[in-house]
Amino acid sequence: MLDFEFYTPTRMIFGKDTQKQVGKIVKEYGFKKVLVHFGGASAKKSGLLDQVTDALKAEGIDYVMLGGVQANPTLAMAKEGIALCQREGVDLVLAVGGGSVIDSSKCIADGVGNPDTDVWNFFLGQGAPKKALPVGVILTLSASGSEMSASCVITNEEQGLKRGFNSVTHRPLFSILNPELTYTVSKFQTGCGTVDIMMHTLERYFGLGQDTPLTDRIAEGLLKTVIEAGRTADKEPENYEARASLMWAGSLSHNNLTGLGRNFFMQVHQLEHELSGMYPRIAHGAGLSALWPSWARYVCDGNVNRFAQYAVNVWNLDMNFEDPMKTALAGIQATEDFFKSIGMPTSLKELDVEPEKIEEMAVKCTNYGKRTLPGIKVLGKAEMMEVYQLALQAGN
Amino acid sequence: MLDFEFYTPTRMIFGKDTQKQVGKIVKEYGFKKVLVHFGGASAKKSGLLDQVTDALKAEGIDYVMLGGVQANPTLAMAKEGIALCQREGVDLVLAVGGGSVIDSSKCIADGVGNPDTDVWNFFLGQGAPKKALPVGVILTLSASGSEMSASCVITNEEQGLKRGFNSVTHRPLFSILNPELTYTVSKFQTGCGTVDIMMHTLERYFGLGQDTPLTDRIAEGLLKTVIEAGRTADKEPENYEARASLMWAGSLSHNNLTGLGRNFFMQVHQLEHELSGMYPRIAHGAGLSALWPSWARYVCDGNVNRFAQYAVNVWNLDMNFEDPMKTALAGIQATEDFFKSIGMPTSLKELDVEPEKIEEMAVKCTNYGKRTLPGIKVLGKAEMMEVYQLALQAGN
Repeated sequence: MLDFEFYTPTRMIFGKDTQKQVGKIVKEYGFKKVLVHFGGASAKKSGLLDQVTDALKAEGIDYVMLGGVQANPTLAMAKEGIALCQREGVDLVLAVGGGSVIDSSKCIADGVGNPDTDVWNFFLGQGAPKKALPVGVILTLSASGSEMSASCVITNEEQGLKRGFNSVTHRPLFSILNPELTYTVSKFQTGCGTVDIMMHTLERYFGLGQDTPLTDRIAEGLLKTVIEAGRTADKEPENYEARASLMWAGSLSHNNLTGLGRNFFMQVHQLEHELSGMYPRIAHGAGLSALWPSWARYVCDGNVNRFAQYAVNVWNLDMNFEDPMKTALAGIQATEDFFKSIGMPTSLKELDVEPEKIEEMAVKCTNYGKRTLPGIKVLGKAEMMEVYQLALQAGN
Repeated sequence: MLDFEFYTPTRMIFGKDTQKQVGKIVKEYGFKKVLVHFGGASAKKSGLLDQVTDALKAEGIDYVMLGGVQANPTLAMAKEGIALCQREGVDLVLAVGGGSVIDSSKCIADGVGNPDTDVWNFFLGQGAPKKALPVGVILTLSASGSEMSASCVITNEEQGLKRGFNSVTHRPLFSILNPELTYTVSKFQTGCGTVDIMMHTLERYFGLGQDTPLTDRIAEGLLKTVIEAGRTADKEPENYEARASLMWAGSLSHNNLTGLGRNFFMQVHQLEHELSGMYPRIAHGAGLSALWPSWARYVCDGNVNRFAQYAVNVWNLDMNFEDPMKTALAGIQATEDFFKSIGMPTSLKELDVEPEKIEEMAVKCTNYGKRTLPGIKVLGKAEMMEVYQLALQAGN
């Protein structure tokens, strides 16, 4: 087990109707003026925004609103939020939405907390925020884990760059999780969320390290739960227990509980970022789903026993002691079959990725030759191209 | 899944030699004067106290020391600590020890934070602390989970009362966990810790609730890990990985992660508190070990499937679908055999408990007829006596 720090100070408030408590919770902390930050029309149409503002009004808490956050939240939108908060004297950013809205809120919080710095600098690794406005969350999508994490990813459209960084300053103070709010999430977005949650744990599980039995058992248990709940939510969108399992797993999957004592490098996430960077129409979860089986088959012989452990402990497959590789590959196949069963793509062909773009994606993923990605197999440009190529040919 | 709140703001710093970072960590927070609170001679003899004070000195941090905390930490000792902190202007209580030292430190922190209230009132449920001095921890024993929990148990020797309460005010700000510091813990105390850690999860696992698959998988994974690590640590006290698994499991086992979405009532803990209250020579872990198998056999028919799940998922036993009770009982037997294998008692007879004391313990456990304990089976005086009686006859 490697040394680690674990710090998850976000207060998680989980259960039915919990969004209605938001006024009381905000008042308890003593905040006076809230930025209610949200995405598109669905939060309005569902009545959720009215519930939130009613709850704030009932406690006499002032608020301003800023909607319109889209997938891949932009720096421009965050800057609009920063200016609004400064103008209005906001003391809490309340994200009502999924990962995009939460990340936009985190960026706003950092911007307001550090008025003398261009907030984009933090995403370029130039300096770190010293403080930030507190962030609260009402979660409407089980996927990113941003509601309990220190991470934040923002797209600078002018520069065509998507960048992320971690900071304790913007980790949410509290997050309100009502699984019922995800009943209306589409089949496709539910599938994307299921894949994203699994991937946050799989990237850690297939990182480097040993002697992490507790972390392994937690990771395997989370994966088993998400597989079952993902299947159920796909068929029964209003199944509370399935939605609840996905939502809680989403938070635990990216707060690092499932990676403690191990090293990990998020290879598949990095490969996917270039993919959806090149093709903004590709949803993050769909990109991960299309890449993972090919990535896994490519790196598998670097740690056959680890993939066999995954097959046995997550998929309940029998261990082939004579030929562990068979077990390892069966676990990857089971994952691929599951992704397909919930309507997720498992090849880049399904996503209409053009073969001639592969080299460009690989070049970008090496940051123009400046890095390789460590892991079970180290990925440089050539290896990345092979993974993309395999993912393009998959299913043929 | 029942609604829940989950809040674990303690910063956990885990790994080799981490105690040497304590000066830097304390300085980072800006504390000026530390109470170094500890137990007996072992912290001195091992050189740990010197390491701690050297690390503080190296950062120019002033400190005072108060040692002598014993198992079942007393109100008198805590009051001495409160007076010392007030006199010396202490702004951080640093617990160097196990659960007893941590709980004593929490009580001191509450006392200093609320100078107008007798701190014992909080333990009697009369009022709650408004604030507290921050508490830091350097852990030397894997057992209580107090290093990441809001709970605190103190004994008022004058009144012959042992009482506990939970408060976010005294939850540790940071905890430093170096598994190497537990190499010198005796076989018996290691066994007691192993049982205590398991019990914190078992009490939750055998509480009331359903549809908690993620919580269940985490609980089962923790139990499997602790069983294996407990076995190894019993044979190889200086096995880092086993000590590390026990230490991390100890923290996760009582921060509520393994009980989220369920109701639980700590029946075995309540029964044990009367036992070690009556016989202070009985260690908490030994009392739990002596009671649990009998408690489990007594309540088992109230939820046979849950006990069968435990047998299959924790002990890898085959499910007897024709007679699930056989599987359930086999799981209890496996637990009992494990306790024995690490030198822990599994009957009250081994602990020289007198049969004539049973009624008195049961009466006290009902708080003199004022309560019953909810659970798989509701325990009133008569039922408690039956459990004690079974535990007395066990192994005959």
